[in-house]
Amino acid sequence: MTNASTAPNEIATRTRFRPPAVPQIDVRGFWGDRVDAVAARTADILYDRCVAARMLEQIDPDRPSPGVVIPFHSMSPTGNEFTGATVTTQMFWDSDWGKTIETAAYSLYRRRNPELEKKIDAVIDMYEKLQQPDGYLSSWYQRIQPGLRWTNLRDCHELYCAGHLIEGAVAYYQATGKRKLLDILSRYADHIGDTFGPEPGKKRGYCGHEEIELALVKLGRVTGEQKYLDLAKFFIDERGQEPHYFDQEARARGADPKNFHFKTYEYNQSHKPVREQDKVVGHAVRAMYLYSGMADVATEYGDDTLRVALDRLWDDLTQKNLYLTGGLGPSAANEGFTADYDLPNETAYAETCAAVALVFWASRMLGMGPNARYGDIMEQALYNGSISGLSLDGSRFFYENPLESRGRHNRWIWHRCPCCPPNIGRMVASVGSYFYGQSEDAIAVHLYGDNTGRFEVAGGKVTLAQESRYPWDGAIAIGVETNAPLQFKLHLRIPGWCRKASLTVNGEAVDLSASSNNGYATLDRRWKSGDMVKLDLEMDARRIYANPNVRQDLGRVALARGPMLYCVEEVDNRGGLSALSLPVDTALKIVDEPSLLGGIVSLTATGEAELADDWNGGLYRSAPPRKTSAEVKAVPYFAWDNREPGEMLVWLRESKG
Amino acid sequence: MTNASTAPNEIATRTRFRPPAVPQIDVRGFWGDRVDAVAARTADILYDRCVAARMLEQIDPDRPSPGVVIPFHSMSPTGNEFTGATVTTQMFWDSDWGKTIETAAYSLYRRRNPELEKKIDAVIDMYEKLQQPDGYLSSWYQRIQPGLRWTNLRDCHELYCAGHLIEGAVAYYQATGKRKLLDILSRYADHIGDTFGPEPGKKRGYCGHEEIELALVKLGRVTGEQKYLDLAKFFIDERGQEPHYFDQEARARGADPKNFHFKTYEYNQSHKPVREQDKVVGHAVRAMYLYSGMADVATEYGDDTLRVALDRLWDDLTQKNLYLTGGLGPSAANEGFTADYDLPNETAYAETCAAVALVFWASRMLGMGPNARYGDIMEQALYNGSISGLSLDGSRFFYENPLESRGRHNRWIWHRCPCCPPNIGRMVASVGSYFYGQSEDAIAVHLYGDNTGRFEVAGGKVTLAQESRYPWDGAIAIGVETNAPLQFKLHLRIPGWCRKASLTVNGEAVDLSASSNNGYATLDRRWKSGDMVKLDLEMDARRIYANPNVRQDLGRVALARGPMLYCVEEVDNRGGLSALSLPVDTALKIVDEPSLLGGIVSLTATGEAELADDWNGGLYRSAPPRKTSAEVKAVPYFAWDNREPGEMLVWLRESKG
Repeated sequence: MTNASTAPNEIATRTRFRPPAVPQIDVRGFWGDRVDAVAARTADILYDRCVAARMLEQIDPDRPSPGVVIPFHSMSPTGNEFTGATVTTQMFWDSDWGKTIETAAYSLYRRRNPELEKKIDAVIDMYEKLQQPDGYLSSWYQRIQPGLRWTNLRDCHELYCAGHLIEGAVAYYQATGKRKLLDILSRYADHIGDTFGPEPGKKRGYCGHEEIELALVKLGRVTGEQKYLDLAKFFIDERGQEPHYFDQEARARGADPKNFHFKTYEYNQSHKPVREQDKVVGHAVRAMYLYSGMADVATEYGDDTLRVALDRLWDDLTQKNLYLTGGLGPSAANEGFTADYDLPNETAYAETCAAVALVFWASRMLGMGPNARYGDIMEQALYNGSISGLSLDGSRFFYENPLESRGRHNRWIWHRCPCCPPNIGRMVASVGSYFYGQSEDAIAVHLYGDNTGRFEVAGGKVTLAQESRYPWDGAIAIGVETNAPLQFKLHLRIPGWCRKASLTVNGEAVDLSASSNNGYATLDRRWKSGDMVKLDLEMDARRIYANPNVRQDLGRVALARGPMLYCVEEVDNRGGLSALSLPVDTALKIVDEPSLLGGIVSLTATGEAELADDWNGGLYRSAPPRKTSAEVKAVPYFAWDNREPGEMLVWLRESKG
Repeated sequence: MTNASTAPNEIATRTRFRPPAVPQIDVRGFWGDRVDAVAARTADILYDRCVAARMLEQIDPDRPSPGVVIPFHSMSPTGNEFTGATVTTQMFWDSDWGKTIETAAYSLYRRRNPELEKKIDAVIDMYEKLQQPDGYLSSWYQRIQPGLRWTNLRDCHELYCAGHLIEGAVAYYQATGKRKLLDILSRYADHIGDTFGPEPGKKRGYCGHEEIELALVKLGRVTGEQKYLDLAKFFIDERGQEPHYFDQEARARGADPKNFHFKTYEYNQSHKPVREQDKVVGHAVRAMYLYSGMADVATEYGDDTLRVALDRLWDDLTQKNLYLTGGLGPSAANEGFTADYDLPNETAYAETCAAVALVFWASRMLGMGPNARYGDIMEQALYNGSISGLSLDGSRFFYENPLESRGRHNRWIWHRCPCCPPNIGRMVASVGSYFYGQSEDAIAVHLYGDNTGRFEVAGGKVTLAQESRYPWDGAIAIGVETNAPLQFKLHLRIPGWCRKASLTVNGEAVDLSASSNNGYATLDRRWKSGDMVKLDLEMDARRIYANPNVRQDLGRVALARGPMLYCVEEVDNRGGLSALSLPVDTALKIVDEPSLLGGIVSLTATGEAELADDWNGGLYRSAPPRKTSAEVKAVPYFAWDNREPGEMLVWLRESKG
């Protein structure tokens, strides 16, 4: 075990790259369509389904749920009786509202929606009424379990809910300029700071479900209050210390700590201090949120002990525990990680929230400086295993994102545990902020696509106008406008998937090998309006193989092009996708399909299929199955199950042809 | 749907082939070793573990069980208090005793065991004391749920327990000549006959777990009492009729029939009358026991309507729902069948009891006449998926018999639900009775192997002495001894797996194509002592492929030789069995290994393996994995997990080489 506290100092960097605020970036093209779907549909759906008990009847019948009704809507003033619909006790209600408000806020940049804004204002008014004089705010603990606040941080999502409300408040303030919710949550954060901390008399606790850490960093950044950053750092530093807070807390409740449902504190990443952690373990979303908060604190405090731990965890995730989709957490039992290289396809849990949270983590690793090590994975999770969780029209959702389906895995309109819809909603609606990073004297371009970004850098104003059909085409033109000639660095990610890239500035070729570092090409020059950067990323169709330790993918091949992973769907291919195989020497054709699935590029090839037609009802025989030629058509993974239900497969068998 | 009641009459046959009684056949060689293990060890283990609460500590820790203690051992006379060990309420206790007694009985033929016999006599004495004056006998309903007898046939195994006690009684009578248990169970059977039947005032019920049907046929045959056969036929005829007995019974208990835990009466094969059934459904062991009873009744009554239904069910099982091991029932959820061609390997439930029960069913189909359609499957289940459930030394057991393991599936010494150990015990100890069938004028040889069988046929006495190293060698010599020259037919199964067979009688070649019918060669002649039949079954190593509809086996190959299916184990091969593949053109070598696993024949070949050594920690890449040559060694499936724990795999990937 590396002792992180003795990590080398030489990697320390004071450079901070912060994401632009959402309104700085206007996205068009591929992401424009996604954001429009969220702004035009998902944002309203989230609100409606969070408040509407009438949704009861329409919920996924396989996952019976009594709906989600905020308790201060449905309870009598005494707090002891429900009125109206039956309500299942979901202690993370406030978090769903936090993410719903956040999604609505980002959506308001895209599309005026006075009705939704009015409704959100009313929800905020109710939170204002709910808040106690000391600043405490929890619909669950005020209405369902009064008197028990701060007695079970391990299981009850209390600080997690606070974190999501904070994120919602920050976003709503940024989008509307309205401070009410931000003030409410600042008061609550102050109360939390009065309750938790290293000082005598305060609790040395932290949340079983991480989230408050990264939220407090956001709050600190928007309010300029260092105390919120310090509180975030306290929660991170304290996690996993001995004597273990969750042990003490359980005993104080009169419970035996051994009766923890998930048996091990690996479940919530408190099994050891965070700087000693070297394996991604437990609940995947919790892990990603923790690492996101750690990355923020590492950036804000220039804390290399955290950075060293994060890089170990990054390697463990990306080298042994990550689906090709950017999905993670194969097991439903702990909603998380199991064993290295255990990546089953059909039973993959790969929760939408986990891939979304990996985007969060990766983007925060980029806060420490441009590095394709993080940018590539952010792109991978963004284009595949996260947005697969949202239907093209923004109305239906996946919780699990398997890489293989027998046809019964279909999108639902709501879920017993509705964490994913507002999570994918807020990520998509704020996607522009992941495109870039900005420091004092540099802009990093992490992602490509049609968009316009406005920045303040090196004391001046810069507009970057990307024109591109990315992700369907690798040609990218970036027009630069400045208020005056301005010296700054422009870092351009050269994606790891790209075998051949070329770069010009105003028509002059740039030597990529000389100008590149950590997978980013750097153009350090005095920019002026009218400068034109052109980046050409060769975007051929390619085959991907998994490390042979991933037994589920042995003998199999996946198809990709650019950042897009592909899959075959039953609707485009003959039934029985398992019987398809792709000869090693088959050419892959790239086909523009502007009218398919909102406009995609498909990949086609001549494959093979075993036939059952000459088996005469037999089950086993000595002669191998007869093969026939079969046309194979693959579509981007994120877009699957947007047509008629059917089988889906990412990893095709490969044959010798 | 074929209406079975209008099935064609022309297939009717009055020929009945009954299995020989166990003591008629002395088995040696392969099966001699298996029977010796049961007689020398398993039989005592079954008794000990059924009575000994001290086994608590030694039970499989993953399946906590308080042990199995017969209630009339451990309860106070009032019937309300337990004394001694804690006892979990297992309503099928009596069935475990029935099978334990049956195993002990067959074992007594093999090996004198006065101590065990004395213990069994004591158990029988206790059953005698337990029996009520009206003949009723159930430790569960007399001691645990008094007053509730015959109120829940659907769930509570009441007649099932009676059936197993009957089978135990018949076997113990045949083995020892002692009638006490047979008399006890005859009285109980009479009570059952007074309670159930088509006559007014009797219940028109049947058991949720079939078993009583085939047991009553055994009782009828050994006592010569037609009434027991008639009662068996009643239970079969009544099953699934409307109004549904289980509906009525539930309502009589004040329960809603819809609250049946398994949702559908397919679970216990009472979803429709048996003659209308055409799919094997539900709990696999129940299904096999039902079909066994149906086959017995079809034979005894010459009932072709049953035979037609059975043949439909046979096709459905063997053409769509049977593992290559002869195992069946892929799902743990219902311990049974799911969908056609759904045969997952690693998660295969394939309960030992189910393969044992398939041997029972197949042997009873042979009661209607020799037909390799049934004999081949009987042999397949016998040599593979059933005896895999018993360790070579007879001391450890499998409940599930998967075709792939990551190394964590290991034999246990006892089980929470201990149905399998006595089931495999009784099957092995009575295996001689499956070798042959006898009718008035014929002997059918269903199985080969070193053994001596004594028969009465065509009014004379015949001894058949098989000499063979089968299943390791296909050369079989059958010496005939008769008390006088005797005309009878000798039917010899030509296994479906055999590509080339030759047959001689006293050195003269027999034209197999002319003398064969339904996969059996028939020698109809006047036999005299000293006649010698020689059958040579070419026994090459062969590759087996699955129907392409079995998606789990696509691109994969299994190895077999003779009746033996093979598997690769980690102990014989490099780790990571999933990375092994077998080129299509690789020669398979047959290796005699007299000192391995009690003496087996192994198969070896030069295969390939993907290597992870040049991946430098990467998880995905564009270059296919590097392959290396790898020696592959396969051992018979039944013998796996008799050495150090490790991975196991039946279906190897096949490569083009």
